[in-house]
Amino acid sequence: MTDTSPEQLDETAARAESASTVMRLVADEERAGWLEAAADALDAAVDELVPLADEETHLGATRLTGEVARTSGQLRMFARVVREGSYLEATIDHAAGAAPDLRRMLRPIGPVAVFSASNFPFAFSVAGGDTASALAVGCPVIVKAHPSHPRLSRRTAEIVAGALRSAGAPEGVLELVEGYDAGIALAKHPLVAAVAFTGSLAGGRALHAICAGRDAPIPFYGELGSINPVVVTEAADSARGADLAQGLVGSFTLGTGQFCTKPGVVLVPQGSAIEAALPDLVASGPGRMLSDSIADGFHGGVRRLVELPGVDLVAGRADADAETGSGTPVVVATDASELDRRAEELLGEVFGPVTVLLRYRDDDDLHAALAHLGGTLTATVHAEPDEEVGPLVGRLETIAGRVLFGGWPTGVAVTWSQQHGGPWPATTTQFTSVGATAVRRFQRPVVYQDAPEHVLPEALREANPLGIPRRVNEALIVG
Amino acid sequence: MTDTSPEQLDETAARAESASTVMRLVADEERAGWLEAAADALDAAVDELVPLADEETHLGATRLTGEVARTSGQLRMFARVVREGSYLEATIDHAAGAAPDLRRMLRPIGPVAVFSASNFPFAFSVAGGDTASALAVGCPVIVKAHPSHPRLSRRTAEIVAGALRSAGAPEGVLELVEGYDAGIALAKHPLVAAVAFTGSLAGGRALHAICAGRDAPIPFYGELGSINPVVVTEAADSARGADLAQGLVGSFTLGTGQFCTKPGVVLVPQGSAIEAALPDLVASGPGRMLSDSIADGFHGGVRRLVELPGVDLVAGRADADAETGSGTPVVVATDASELDRRAEELLGEVFGPVTVLLRYRDDDDLHAALAHLGGTLTATVHAEPDEEVGPLVGRLETIAGRVLFGGWPTGVAVTWSQQHGGPWPATTTQFTSVGATAVRRFQRPVVYQDAPEHVLPEALREANPLGIPRRVNEALIVG
Repeated sequence: MTDTSPEQLDETAARAESASTVMRLVADEERAGWLEAAADALDAAVDELVPLADEETHLGATRLTGEVARTSGQLRMFARVVREGSYLEATIDHAAGAAPDLRRMLRPIGPVAVFSASNFPFAFSVAGGDTASALAVGCPVIVKAHPSHPRLSRRTAEIVAGALRSAGAPEGVLELVEGYDAGIALAKHPLVAAVAFTGSLAGGRALHAICAGRDAPIPFYGELGSINPVVVTEAADSARGADLAQGLVGSFTLGTGQFCTKPGVVLVPQGSAIEAALPDLVASGPGRMLSDSIADGFHGGVRRLVELPGVDLVAGRADADAETGSGTPVVVATDASELDRRAEELLGEVFGPVTVLLRYRDDDDLHAALAHLGGTLTATVHAEPDEEVGPLVGRLETIAGRVLFGGWPTGVAVTWSQQHGGPWPATTTQFTSVGATAVRRFQRPVVYQDAPEHVLPEALREANPLGIPRRVNEALIVG
Repeated sequence: MTDTSPEQLDETAARAESASTVMRLVADEERAGWLEAAADALDAAVDELVPLADEETHLGATRLTGEVARTSGQLRMFARVVREGSYLEATIDHAAGAAPDLRRMLRPIGPVAVFSASNFPFAFSVAGGDTASALAVGCPVIVKAHPSHPRLSRRTAEIVAGALRSAGAPEGVLELVEGYDAGIALAKHPLVAAVAFTGSLAGGRALHAICAGRDAPIPFYGELGSINPVVVTEAADSARGADLAQGLVGSFTLGTGQFCTKPGVVLVPQGSAIEAALPDLVASGPGRMLSDSIADGFHGGVRRLVELPGVDLVAGRADADAETGSGTPVVVATDASELDRRAEELLGEVFGPVTVLLRYRDDDDLHAALAHLGGTLTATVHAEPDEEVGPLVGRLETIAGRVLFGGWPTGVAVTWSQQHGGPWPATTTQFTSVGATAVRRFQRPVVYQDAPEHVLPEALREANPLGIPRRVNEALIVG
């Protein structure tokens, strides 16, 4: 344990602030190159980093190797986003009548604090999506290492910061701090301009309050919790209940259920084929969880569910391995109408391989249940092709950031159109933490009024020297 | 006084929620027509509304007539924004390898609470920019009337809601509530999805805490305060100090100084021509202020400034009309280095016709002073064409949302590129409350994964039936 002291934090923040001043002036092309250098360095270190990650997280070499590729791919995607240039939202209105010449673009917000997550030691950690999107737009990053993988955090920071520096980035471009108190102090630090966080509802709420309560409040981009409801229509259950059961088991047990997109609640018809098929499918043995405290949280959550009146144990055994730091898959079920009595208990996120079937009698019962659901990252519909799902989708899109048709919510493609976010508590703002627009969290608009050409950033000069998409006198013009 | 009761508020919110459900499905073309109908109705009622506004605000018929035109023009601009379609940020990634088909767009966030401002009874009030941008993207609006113009608020709401309904909008599209307690209850109401506010730092901070402290926090879009620093270089002062003094007086006394963009602090060289010219220029008589409490706040603020050690009264008289509800223009001056001792007192916003000259000795002194400035809506540079202003602009763009070269910050053009916002306390988020992108505050991204064509919103269907700009497989394509 090497907790960052208050003095060390001040020095760290000062280096980041100094880097910020330099980075504001760096050309997009050069910064895109930094991201690619970081991606190459990560890929080159995969044989060193994966064993280290496995020791600390028990996620297994296959999954972790894939996660390194996802993380380096993400850095390269943001390099493409930067080069394409739309992310600057360059907009020009020439002077007209009494209106002045106005030229607007997005500029970096300043040093960003990134709190890394336990369950993605690469993709949501030191060099993960928050870091990549902040660096992409020109913001230095101070990462708060997750205490469940400290050695991996330090080594990743060395490798990635080293690659960034070798590619020309200034000292302070990527810094690491450790320790609970240092994390709180980081969120309060006057030189920090924004905080990004992926973690628990309780931790997120506390950091949210800190960010809002500062003398000068700053944005808090938190991803806090999600139950990812799945709705199976009667027709879909009749047509392919057993297949759906198989798919569900694959999704809620993936990574020992330790994904923010794990399907936590499944609305199924009463007497469904899915429920009937599950006991034979949920047979996998216990999986080692990320940490003993996460395993304890899982067992406690399962116990609380099983002890609720009217809740049946459909598959797996509660408490089967409460002492081992591992989790065994569990399915419980109850009537959807139980939500009228104990929605909070039934809909609380339990991190780990457990899912709750909610049996509905008819459409009215289903829609009454949907009314209880709060914000979530994803919502999934399994229906037959000829079914009218308009009202169902209309409801789901008000609570979720991603609505799936068929398929399962685990697995988040890192593409330009991805949305990984949703109403509270899924995320705390109307942004995404995965996908091209994640960069928008760390940008701030600035408009230059009647500015001399030589003072303007290149993106706003009349001749469009960067050749980027711009809006000029209300019309969008591509390159 | 007709305060909205808790029961009335519940009914109002329920009507808005019901309108929200309808509005999510209304075509963009139709909704753009609603905005234009509202604009036409406002323009048609100018002869009735302006006298009513003048009775309650004392802003004068000329200014108020212009403000009606700005407000109806703003509604029409948002209609153009909706029709152009980029505001939806439609983005499509076709399925590729393991990645699914993903189609993303921005959707309305839900009922929006708009707290109107005292100083813009039209443009930042019932049918002002917050309301227009929320309606534009399909969100119903509940306006909290400003207590300084209640009759105008009610009549405007009748006219505009009537026009919206006549154009086909649902009941609940635009609602009005009144009273302090109702305002608090509105920000806490579970059916309200976002709050927009233009007003004081104290009031805004309180609402910000309410929005962040809810069981389910919601975004708070506040515009809270701004001192709009102006920097005059020695060369500019030498070349045209008297003209600059004239421009400054015009700007800080405009509307009796009751603009959020009033220049509140002016950095001038020691012994400047500007300062020498001001006493003869600041000769206008008292102007009636918006309310007695605003006048009292102004007189108190001026008294506190004048009583600070080292502060000189350059023009006007402090306390000249403390009893009359009016304000007389005042200029005070001190050394910029005084900021090292009492930055908070010198840089606090005083709403009304007062500005503070800060005399700097040299460039180091100027930059030391700039380091004391916090977030602000605008920052203005007056320099000569051949001067190197890069470092100065580099500093100003980190604290301001709009950087002006020449000119004065009062007067905010309502155009696509406008940015009316800045770091805390100017605004509470990285958005604008004026200009085309103001709509983004009331939108939330939703991505549809592997959705059947008939379930997708038109904006995301393969053939692009709306003909809007979209990004497809990473490439931006204009209609």
